[in-house]
Amino acid sequence: MMKDFGLIQVYTGNGKGKTTAALGLALRALGWNKKVCMIQFIKGKKQTGELAISKSKIPHFSIHQFAKSNKIILRPTKKNRQVAAKTLEFAQKTIFSQKYDLIILDEINPAIKLKLISEKEVLKLLAEKPKNLEIVLTGRGATKKIIQAADLVTEMKLIKHPYYKNIPARKGIEY
Amino acid sequence: MMKDFGLIQVYTGNGKGKTTAALGLALRALGWNKKVCMIQFIKGKKQTGELAISKSKIPHFSIHQFAKSNKIILRPTKKNRQVAAKTLEFAQKTIFSQKYDLIILDEINPAIKLKLISEKEVLKLLAEKPKNLEIVLTGRGATKKIIQAADLVTEMKLIKHPYYKNIPARKGIEY
Repeated sequence: MMKDFGLIQVYTGNGKGKTTAALGLALRALGWNKKVCMIQFIKGKKQTGELAISKSKIPHFSIHQFAKSNKIILRPTKKNRQVAAKTLEFAQKTIFSQKYDLIILDEINPAIKLKLISEKEVLKLLAEKPKNLEIVLTGRGATKKIIQAADLVTEMKLIKHPYYKNIPARKGIEY
Repeated sequence: MMKDFGLIQVYTGNGKGKTTAALGLALRALGWNKKVCMIQFIKGKKQTGELAISKSKIPHFSIHQFAKSNKIILRPTKKNRQVAAKTLEFAQKTIFSQKYDLIILDEINPAIKLKLISEKEVLKLLAEKPKNLEIVLTGRGATKKIIQAADLVTEMKLIKHPYYKNIPARKGIEY
């Protein structure tokens, strides 16, 4: 486990690099033989570079996706809430499993914002997390209460973005 | 090489996650068997998680440090300029080697800002880079011209930081 203490980090904002920064933290932690788990909310099933590497080359790194389709979940339909609830339940189990040093709750911020999961439940989870566990929450629209509960909060601000040049998401870079 | 095109990305600002986002891009690219090189300006020699992982578990990932001591380089002394010049020269060679898909020029922004290296030379390098190569520039204080030259620019904005709680940098998280 992490020496001494684990913080709650939030990466939010409309810019690039939120999930990517979390993956960078994962890489760095894995370099020190820490154990890392990423749990993905909102995002659909998708073959990404991080998923490929978690399955093959690096030990102690797992990524969990619960969505059935490859679409991004945006509406709080009953089905989407069920998937989100399942994801949160898994997150809860994982957080208290004591098996990991770093747990990334990827895109949990919009999941809260869209009311797919309960902010109150997430806050409870953060308040009760094992002391040595580092938790990272990513995604746009982190709520005030989540920011209050966090130790380290960074806003990724869009200054210039190639999507405006009509460039599609690229394998090996954006996913 | 990357399919079709490589962009110039900049991660700047006073918040956390600049180098970390670049490392996340590295992880993702490595998952697709891309070849990644990180060249570190400013930062002193230091055993980091990313260095450990680049040396051991993942193929196609190399990190290059040129500083002699473990101190962060901040003043444009003759010696520091020499180290920076050597680093830039290596970056140049690496960029045109056609051996990599993603090259990270870590902390090059402050190196330019502190006049350790010439902004003009870096701009020339960016203008002439191989079309398919993705280049990432990290660090505070990206200059206007660097931002102009980039395709994708993200500012990491500090919202809340644990350093203000007197917590030291932690192995496996901050390095």
